[in-house]
Amino acid sequence: MVYTNGKKVLGLVDCDAVYVSCEFLLRYITGFEAENGFAVVDETGTTLYTDKRYIEAAEKLFQGSDVTPVLYKRDEALKRLAAYNRVGISYKQTSHSEYETLAQAGVKTVDIDKELAQAMSVKNEWELSCIQKACEIAEEAFLALLPEIKEGMTETEVAALLEYGMRKLGAQGLAFPTIVAFGAHAAVPHHETGMTKLRFGDEILIDFGCRVDGYYSDITRTFLFGDDGKHDEFKKAYQAVLTAHELVKEKLVGGMTGKEADAIAREYLKSAGYGDQFTHSLGHGIGLNVHESPSVSPMGESELKDGMVFSDEPGVYFAGEFGIRIEDTITLQNGKVKSFMSKTDRNLIIL
Amino acid sequence: MVYTNGKKVLGLVDCDAVYVSCEFLLRYITGFEAENGFAVVDETGTTLYTDKRYIEAAEKLFQGSDVTPVLYKRDEALKRLAAYNRVGISYKQTSHSEYETLAQAGVKTVDIDKELAQAMSVKNEWELSCIQKACEIAEEAFLALLPEIKEGMTETEVAALLEYGMRKLGAQGLAFPTIVAFGAHAAVPHHETGMTKLRFGDEILIDFGCRVDGYYSDITRTFLFGDDGKHDEFKKAYQAVLTAHELVKEKLVGGMTGKEADAIAREYLKSAGYGDQFTHSLGHGIGLNVHESPSVSPMGESELKDGMVFSDEPGVYFAGEFGIRIEDTITLQNGKVKSFMSKTDRNLIIL
Repeated sequence: MVYTNGKKVLGLVDCDAVYVSCEFLLRYITGFEAENGFAVVDETGTTLYTDKRYIEAAEKLFQGSDVTPVLYKRDEALKRLAAYNRVGISYKQTSHSEYETLAQAGVKTVDIDKELAQAMSVKNEWELSCIQKACEIAEEAFLALLPEIKEGMTETEVAALLEYGMRKLGAQGLAFPTIVAFGAHAAVPHHETGMTKLRFGDEILIDFGCRVDGYYSDITRTFLFGDDGKHDEFKKAYQAVLTAHELVKEKLVGGMTGKEADAIAREYLKSAGYGDQFTHSLGHGIGLNVHESPSVSPMGESELKDGMVFSDEPGVYFAGEFGIRIEDTITLQNGKVKSFMSKTDRNLIIL
Repeated sequence: MVYTNGKKVLGLVDCDAVYVSCEFLLRYITGFEAENGFAVVDETGTTLYTDKRYIEAAEKLFQGSDVTPVLYKRDEALKRLAAYNRVGISYKQTSHSEYETLAQAGVKTVDIDKELAQAMSVKNEWELSCIQKACEIAEEAFLALLPEIKEGMTETEVAALLEYGMRKLGAQGLAFPTIVAFGAHAAVPHHETGMTKLRFGDEILIDFGCRVDGYYSDITRTFLFGDDGKHDEFKKAYQAVLTAHELVKEKLVGGMTGKEADAIAREYLKSAGYGDQFTHSLGHGIGLNVHESPSVSPMGESELKDGMVFSDEPGVYFAGEFGIRIEDTITLQNGKVKSFMSKTDRNLIIL
């Protein structure tokens, strides 16, 4: 069984056909990913054009579905596209050179970026199950990592070990370059993992995720490598971030805007004295991209709905001292928050 | 010291300024990589526009260079760009939506894809040293992997272990999803690494590479996991592929076209009876992309020159039976081939 979204997207746009060529949109529309190919959706169904490397696998996969795989012939496809009155494409995911090729062939395009983002933000059961699996692998790899962390290891070694763990558990790849930050490095939200060695008493922040069937997970945990008795401020801030994180899970309900969701954590952290230290958004949508719709930030105007998947990741940062971020990938189910993460503790771990 | 290529590119194009915004072009022009930013090159030097997450690191890096980092203000930058008569951009690496933003701001663009590809194809010493390091890590990880390969391991486990090895040795990431193919899977040039278990007598094909300071390595090795005495055809074909691979290293000289280089391997394999089984190009350029200029294929019309980096990867494939590919990343130095790979054996390994 293959889950396709061609019909769903065509239903959302005022177009005779939809054309996609970038890898993640190809996967979204057809359920199939190929380095080289494109898809055309119209009311008769979806045609996947690809090359001889992929055609055999595609034919097997699409038996009995509404997708017809066809051996790639650029000119034929362009002629076909030129016959429609309005062809929806993503102006963000189409290069200007490809746009020019379409325009020169007489293809009349309209931008459907917004509709695509909207369609992709609400996940079906298949998509949710992929994300669930990606989250489980991330959590299991994290749990397997903890007892392996030793004094003197570098940030890079810890990252490599965690990544290896995710791959062994079946992840296809990483969500993004793993962030491992020791000590004050954790105060840099986008710290570049390096060769710094772990010392007793260091805090450790790890932001990571993996990919399963094209879909991503995203998780952050902050913990201590031993307690040298110098972490009172850190521990106080940790409790505040944890409370903000949990408040979002309790109070966020379907129908709120991204802005309202963000405010749950932001107002609490402000009241706890950490308003200036929460320097980023509460969250971002997660799916076939690690950052996609919906926006869960002070600028998020659209409503959060059942089936949307996004991060709950409040954080506070004190430059040169410490940083704390606690992040789960979550979804809305019957108007309530359901976290995909159930295996790891959010309470402060001291190794 | 940071190696920048803004001047080099500006010298190749008929433009008052060059504008780049995608990550690898930003790195190429400025030597700096940021998720969010763009660069403008004109006769006065290069300006890197980025956000507050990166500005401090950029200021440190660019002291004493011709690059000036500036805090990102989109409108100001667009106004500045609109004042030039001709702004060179890559139409391939610019999305149509970004192109529209530029056009609406009155920026007069011309496509410099060809000039960029040409500039990037000839590497300077710094670039060659990054590729050398990426190749050394790949080879060392491969050598460390060999004694760990055991009966019953899955393709994915072998891939994960190799990737872990490269990360531990300092690779920033992978060049592409590692291909590990057991047995007849090796006959599929783009096999998707899966859960198949290794059996005694299987052949193993591994195509992999890693990334160092933005630059990639690419290598393929084919070998046997024990000899069950059923590999006569395989061994015969292996010798033919190896001879083709080595002939390229001997006979390829600067000034030949990609087509002529490809023909060295292709004609030999044809004479040895494997003409129909060599189903892809001899090679492709490697640098900040795993596939870039020059083309080393029957369609490669441009000349191969000193400082170009590309793969030497003849292969033969018998569907349902076996596949063989032997690949090094190589360069031209004083008109002669120099391989970046010196640690691993190309002769048939039987574990």
